[in-house]
Amino acid sequence: MAKINENYLKLPGSYLFSVINQKVDAFTKKNPGKELIRMGIGDVTRPLVPSVIGAMKDAVEEMGTFEGFHGYGPEQGYDFLRDLIVENDYRKKGIDIQADEVFVSDGAKSDTGNIGDIFSADNKVAVCDPVYPVYVDTNAMSGRAGSYDKESGHWSELIYMECSAENGFLPPIPDKHADLIYLCFPNNPTGMAADRDYLKKWVDYAISEGSVILFDSAYETFITQPEIPHSIFEIEGAKKCAVEFRSFSKTAGFTGNRCAYTVIPHELVIDGARVNSLWNRRHTTKFNGVPYIVQRGAAAVYGEQGQREIKEVIKYYLNNAEIIRGGLAKAGLTVYGGVNAPYIWAKTPDNMPSWDFFDRLLEEANVITTPGVGFGPSGEGYIRFTAFGDADKTKEAVERIIKIL
Amino acid sequence: MAKINENYLKLPGSYLFSVINQKVDAFTKKNPGKELIRMGIGDVTRPLVPSVIGAMKDAVEEMGTFEGFHGYGPEQGYDFLRDLIVENDYRKKGIDIQADEVFVSDGAKSDTGNIGDIFSADNKVAVCDPVYPVYVDTNAMSGRAGSYDKESGHWSELIYMECSAENGFLPPIPDKHADLIYLCFPNNPTGMAADRDYLKKWVDYAISEGSVILFDSAYETFITQPEIPHSIFEIEGAKKCAVEFRSFSKTAGFTGNRCAYTVIPHELVIDGARVNSLWNRRHTTKFNGVPYIVQRGAAAVYGEQGQREIKEVIKYYLNNAEIIRGGLAKAGLTVYGGVNAPYIWAKTPDNMPSWDFFDRLLEEANVITTPGVGFGPSGEGYIRFTAFGDADKTKEAVERIIKIL
Repeated sequence: MAKINENYLKLPGSYLFSVINQKVDAFTKKNPGKELIRMGIGDVTRPLVPSVIGAMKDAVEEMGTFEGFHGYGPEQGYDFLRDLIVENDYRKKGIDIQADEVFVSDGAKSDTGNIGDIFSADNKVAVCDPVYPVYVDTNAMSGRAGSYDKESGHWSELIYMECSAENGFLPPIPDKHADLIYLCFPNNPTGMAADRDYLKKWVDYAISEGSVILFDSAYETFITQPEIPHSIFEIEGAKKCAVEFRSFSKTAGFTGNRCAYTVIPHELVIDGARVNSLWNRRHTTKFNGVPYIVQRGAAAVYGEQGQREIKEVIKYYLNNAEIIRGGLAKAGLTVYGGVNAPYIWAKTPDNMPSWDFFDRLLEEANVITTPGVGFGPSGEGYIRFTAFGDADKTKEAVERIIKIL
Repeated sequence: MAKINENYLKLPGSYLFSVINQKVDAFTKKNPGKELIRMGIGDVTRPLVPSVIGAMKDAVEEMGTFEGFHGYGPEQGYDFLRDLIVENDYRKKGIDIQADEVFVSDGAKSDTGNIGDIFSADNKVAVCDPVYPVYVDTNAMSGRAGSYDKESGHWSELIYMECSAENGFLPPIPDKHADLIYLCFPNNPTGMAADRDYLKKWVDYAISEGSVILFDSAYETFITQPEIPHSIFEIEGAKKCAVEFRSFSKTAGFTGNRCAYTVIPHELVIDGARVNSLWNRRHTTKFNGVPYIVQRGAAAVYGEQGQREIKEVIKYYLNNAEIIRGGLAKAGLTVYGGVNAPYIWAKTPDNMPSWDFFDRLLEEANVITTPGVGFGPSGEGYIRFTAFGDADKTKEAVERIIKIL
């Protein structure tokens, strides 16, 4: 008889957003008149910018003509896009990355989820706690996580690195060996960024331990402080030990458009095998490229007009973040993040459990947030706000919260 | 030290299309004046039809407005598309499939490549020979294929089912046990289709053995003969033992647009676990949906205008297939396929090796094809022609071949 991957059965339900939805539905039924403000899910709300829309319209037109039609493209992405990525996101910033080190894909979720395929099942994996659940769940699926302990909310074989107010949400380098280390900076969910010194410690650790850093920089475009690196490859030695994941989702509002990229330097070699070649093999075997139209849209982001337009949008969201930070502080909450990221991570009042505070914000302020504990046990006592909403509604939400606290 | 997935190192190079390209490049350099006609790669050449272009343009416009912007969509696809798929591709044909049994994705390549994730590594896998290489390579990557033998061109742990002229390219049901069986009908590369009786044997086998049939019907739209089923789910019992992969790539020219879907009936249960739920978990964890714009384009295929337009295109390609079939027969070759599929599978003259005949067609007729042996050892002595080209060029290619043979 066919046998399923038993690891899937070990996964706890992915209840976070479905529990939130149930609570919101129940509240709406009881209070049909109340206008809810959503600051929960990390999804953008501003439309795609005109230069992207224009480029995609042109590309759609092309696809309807004999001369402009594009069938299968290169799985790794069209040269026009890879070259723009390399030039603008790396070389202009003094980082020497080659076009064939860039793999265009349909999302950082897919890439951070699939990267494990090219590694053996018996690698020791380290993740932050709280954490973007995809890193954990995909390792559990491939048998690297061991068994799940409901009590602790942890998997037996993962190394959890606690991110707390005490360590500034930058967990110390572990005192044991880890093979694969997932880092996300600026961080989801805490909204905190890592500076060069901190990342240098990781690179040194990875080189000395022979580990690979899987660096998710999906939020780099929100960085406002000059001391915060945008890429792990700004750190000396990183090309020998790191993979970087980037996305157009938050940079250019592509969450519904699906385009991202992963950078794997040729220098990253494990036991004689180039990780770039392994990923190239996976990417060309299990993936068939991002739609031509979408890649044209992504390319437009790098134009002069595109840059001006997306920077306006990012400014808009960062302004929301400032409103949330300031407002919550005024309400007496201790807040983190939101300076180099679209997320604000707030301590609940009086160490209230995350879910209780979530309920209170929903019922009394009619604001939807995400309970910190949903991202891992160390998120208990925190709540996440996102800055992706409408500015007026964000202001109103903050005013409502100030009123009830 | 981090450890790579050693299975990747066992993979032989994917030389087929790169060797073809090298040969073509060398020929072009030596013969700069010669006009080559491409009948090699299975990629469409006709532009997207007007109804799809119109729908995508509208969707692009929407994405530039506050009211019409779409961020993250449901990973499994928007209801508007899943409902259309269910209604048009199944219910209208008397097959009862539910919308939540349909998973919209970015390609049948991705889905047939990734489906292995939800199965244990120790399943026994059966594939046809010749075969679409993705089935084999992805099983090799996940450790189900054993080791590769250069001599035979086979992997030690796979069950190969020889498709030959003697068995009408419908391999007999194996006399041993297989857990996962990859079937592709109408077939790539042979272009041959399977009738109900044949598929019924597979379903009976799968049910009695507790196997799962992974049924790739990416070419179903080319079926012209009424006795050929379009879906495995036309066969009684199939919902208990089969997964079906479909694609808009060949149906509607979406190779550069990326949209497909996989159907997993709730009735497909292995050892108490619903395969639909396992795939849902994978799909929502490692994938973030198909672009909204692309899904709108796919939905337009089901409109009255869309249906009329895509049928015209399919007719155009099938007419090419007829030209190729007739012409090659006139040239004295024995031909298969091309009636219910866009592929023509021709026996080489005098049992000439595939690559020799490829060279001859390139050098003497200036026509690019694909050597059958590139799809597996049982493809030796065959050559594949695709019907996706321009009609006039297809005619000319056939005339050139007739002249040289």
